[in-house]
Amino acid sequence: MATDQAQSDASEADTYDQFEERVRRISNVGNAAGILRWDQEVVMPDEGTPARAQQLSTLSSISHELLTADETGELLEELESTDLEDEQAAVVREVRRRYDRETSVPQELVEEISATASNAHPKWKQAKEDDDFEHFAPTLEKLVDLKREYANHIDPDADPYAVLFADYEPYIDLETAERVLERLREELVPLIDAIDDSDVALATDAFAGEFDDDDQEALARDVLDSLGYDWDRGRLDTAPHPFSSGTQFDARVTTRFEEDDLLGSITSTIHEFGHANYTLGLPDDGYGTPLGEARDLSVHESQSRLWENHVGRSRPFWEHFLPIARERFPELEDVTPEETYEAANQVHDDNLIRVEADELTYHLHIVIRFEIERDLIRGDLEVSEVPEVWNDKYEDYLGVRPETDAAGCLQDIHWSHGDFGYFSTYSLGSVLAAQLYAAAESDLGEFDDRIREGEFGELNGWLRENVHQHGKRYVTPDLIEQATGEGLTADYFLEYVASKYGDLYELKEY
Amino acid sequence: MATDQAQSDASEADTYDQFEERVRRISNVGNAAGILRWDQEVVMPDEGTPARAQQLSTLSSISHELLTADETGELLEELESTDLEDEQAAVVREVRRRYDRETSVPQELVEEISATASNAHPKWKQAKEDDDFEHFAPTLEKLVDLKREYANHIDPDADPYAVLFADYEPYIDLETAERVLERLREELVPLIDAIDDSDVALATDAFAGEFDDDDQEALARDVLDSLGYDWDRGRLDTAPHPFSSGTQFDARVTTRFEEDDLLGSITSTIHEFGHANYTLGLPDDGYGTPLGEARDLSVHESQSRLWENHVGRSRPFWEHFLPIARERFPELEDVTPEETYEAANQVHDDNLIRVEADELTYHLHIVIRFEIERDLIRGDLEVSEVPEVWNDKYEDYLGVRPETDAAGCLQDIHWSHGDFGYFSTYSLGSVLAAQLYAAAESDLGEFDDRIREGEFGELNGWLRENVHQHGKRYVTPDLIEQATGEGLTADYFLEYVASKYGDLYELKEY
Repeated sequence: MATDQAQSDASEADTYDQFEERVRRISNVGNAAGILRWDQEVVMPDEGTPARAQQLSTLSSISHELLTADETGELLEELESTDLEDEQAAVVREVRRRYDRETSVPQELVEEISATASNAHPKWKQAKEDDDFEHFAPTLEKLVDLKREYANHIDPDADPYAVLFADYEPYIDLETAERVLERLREELVPLIDAIDDSDVALATDAFAGEFDDDDQEALARDVLDSLGYDWDRGRLDTAPHPFSSGTQFDARVTTRFEEDDLLGSITSTIHEFGHANYTLGLPDDGYGTPLGEARDLSVHESQSRLWENHVGRSRPFWEHFLPIARERFPELEDVTPEETYEAANQVHDDNLIRVEADELTYHLHIVIRFEIERDLIRGDLEVSEVPEVWNDKYEDYLGVRPETDAAGCLQDIHWSHGDFGYFSTYSLGSVLAAQLYAAAESDLGEFDDRIREGEFGELNGWLRENVHQHGKRYVTPDLIEQATGEGLTADYFLEYVASKYGDLYELKEY
Repeated sequence: MATDQAQSDASEADTYDQFEERVRRISNVGNAAGILRWDQEVVMPDEGTPARAQQLSTLSSISHELLTADETGELLEELESTDLEDEQAAVVREVRRRYDRETSVPQELVEEISATASNAHPKWKQAKEDDDFEHFAPTLEKLVDLKREYANHIDPDADPYAVLFADYEPYIDLETAERVLERLREELVPLIDAIDDSDVALATDAFAGEFDDDDQEALARDVLDSLGYDWDRGRLDTAPHPFSSGTQFDARVTTRFEEDDLLGSITSTIHEFGHANYTLGLPDDGYGTPLGEARDLSVHESQSRLWENHVGRSRPFWEHFLPIARERFPELEDVTPEETYEAANQVHDDNLIRVEADELTYHLHIVIRFEIERDLIRGDLEVSEVPEVWNDKYEDYLGVRPETDAAGCLQDIHWSHGDFGYFSTYSLGSVLAAQLYAAAESDLGEFDDRIREGEFGELNGWLRENVHQHGKRYVTPDLIEQATGEGLTADYFLEYVASKYGDLYELKEY
């Protein structure tokens, strides 16, 4: 008996090793593709595109074939019927999920979606340029149909929008997301109205002026230095649409500089730092398996927004950072920390553009997109109705009506990529950021004094211990529960904004 | 009959398409790995290595498996028994060659060589630092044994050194290479002796001084502009060991700058331009198959050396380029073109280091390495004898004896990588460069006047037409024959150096 058991253990170990080898391969191919995409955005010469497209397409199909091979399915089945250690079981769970999704969608449909999206992108761009929704509408309709068909292959009995949402956020129920977004809408609309009615005018011109690109870059490096970015495992470059990417060994940040938007480059750099810092906190020995990979979009966004908003848009941060900024830009000599703090936190309820929105109105932009795309995918809304519904909702929630579709429902790139279900993860990230920050303060005391001193180590240590180091070991609700003692809730975010903006705009009822 | 023929044609076309699809895949994986290696040398943060090593190893084994799969062998056999168009037959020929080599060597041996080389590199580095050949000798011995075993798997009846040489230069016979190198030795030794006896002292201090890195970079960009580098498909960066890499859509150059070596950065940039310019001349529609890939090492090196030496070290080039250089470095105001020409062409017969050698003595450094590694692999020389044989040959051919092994047989990295058979391609490249340049002048007339005017388009057009655009369509001897009307010969190189250095050093007999 003992010998049999030992043999069986040995064979399980073999099976797991074989499985892990396969998983590492898939992960390495994916990470190689990540480098190729970074290269394309940051350093590739203009005319490199045709070759790069073929390279990426080859890597993607190799990865798909490795994942969906019969052998993967057989290994999964074998492992699921054996006693695994917790970490091994987590790896099996994550791979099973991807395996089931990728094997259930016919490859021809995946290719048709990809081809349609490639074709949709220039149509969307043209439509936006010409403010001509009709030019984009037929392609959008086709994408909606194809994505509905895609969802149907994955789970014919489920709400198709819930299936698509799970592509970006696999472990948070759509109901939870809906509940959170509804609460944001219900509570933010009156808060923004109150701000609109307030007589307080915040200081707006702390960052007025023109700021040299090279000096802005030097200051962006100062920001990253100050927050504790690990330059031995990272780098800073510019890209038209800032992003961060990489692995725990090499997590890079990009940002952009505009002469008249110094504040924007600072907050964007802090945001991308938050993403890269999460990646850098993943365990080295988990590299190549889900144990060394970040949880999904909402958790990732919680990290960027925690640093951007709770740290980077706080009063003590500007007390700490303004003297550093003055060394690069002596013209900031006469500006006070309070003025920079106010400039970083103005609420503009007449803004129509999501990417230019402030910390409050931003979520109404998201709610609008969420409601529209959900209804589109469920078949409760026709594509032709989108512009009017969009404008009505802007009027309803934000009190402002777009005069063009270019500044309305054509503003975002996401749908032209066939991405439906993505937007809400931005708001879930903000909500989770506030919840994590409150939990960290509850464990370690208020951070204000430490931020004022430029000491970010303890906050980061808490995030490392409670979020980063776990990779994908826990499903998202368990990760949140363990880190904060409760399930995902908008309470902390709403308390945070009520207190912060109540104070800034001297709102009696907040 | 006609119908049968049509069906058979259709099925052949299917087979070829299937084959080409497989070949494109392998090529895309290889090109992706190329980007990862560029990234590692140029932009990767220091601590990115562990992840990068795994990514590259995964891509390499995927490529190996795709190439050596049974399906590849079956497709090759099927295609070899059908009537193919010339271009298709060329693709089949090239893939067959790689397939036969890679399938004949057991994967365990490949991995052992790779592991031994990884281990050998730090040992070589340490041995060089400590001037302690004994520290490296056992590993070198093991590498020699393993590479002999490797050659034996590929062809047990062939000279093992010829088999290894064919890894770098598959279509030039080792006998041809030996004949060329022997002639170089026979004719260069007396030429260098004559220079040594000459009373002429060339101007040496045209580039004396210290030159700012940023200005050197600007000048390197001027060089590339002037030669016609296509920036839409390329870029310039710095790397510790300059190289160029990429595809016809994206062929990048790296260089390095040392404060006291402006000439070195210019010639190195021109050299790498030559490589990248070859890559950029490969046909776009051949991308992904051997038709869009460069011929092997000697032809590649002929392109870098043609531009570096025949153009970049010519008198008219400096007449053209010195005024440009003066705009970046006003301190060159008093230097004459003749002085820069002389500075770029000094012969140092007392130099022990290959990478610091001039255009003449360089080849004796190569001949020495060639003779030693050939005898090592054939078993005619023991590893323990290498230092003494090395020093004897330096004394014999160059009249100078290394006082340490660090400045002797430990100077080059190649053997620590397990690369035996590589060195000679450098000299074959110089020889072919002269032969091609002579053929181009015979077709288009002397280039001196055009170079003096900074007009490089006709020379490059000739190279595009006669070399670049063919990719790997023709085997190397046929390519050379078609471009120059004869087989590979050292005649033109020897004429070129006799005339150039005879003139510079006022040698009566040359």
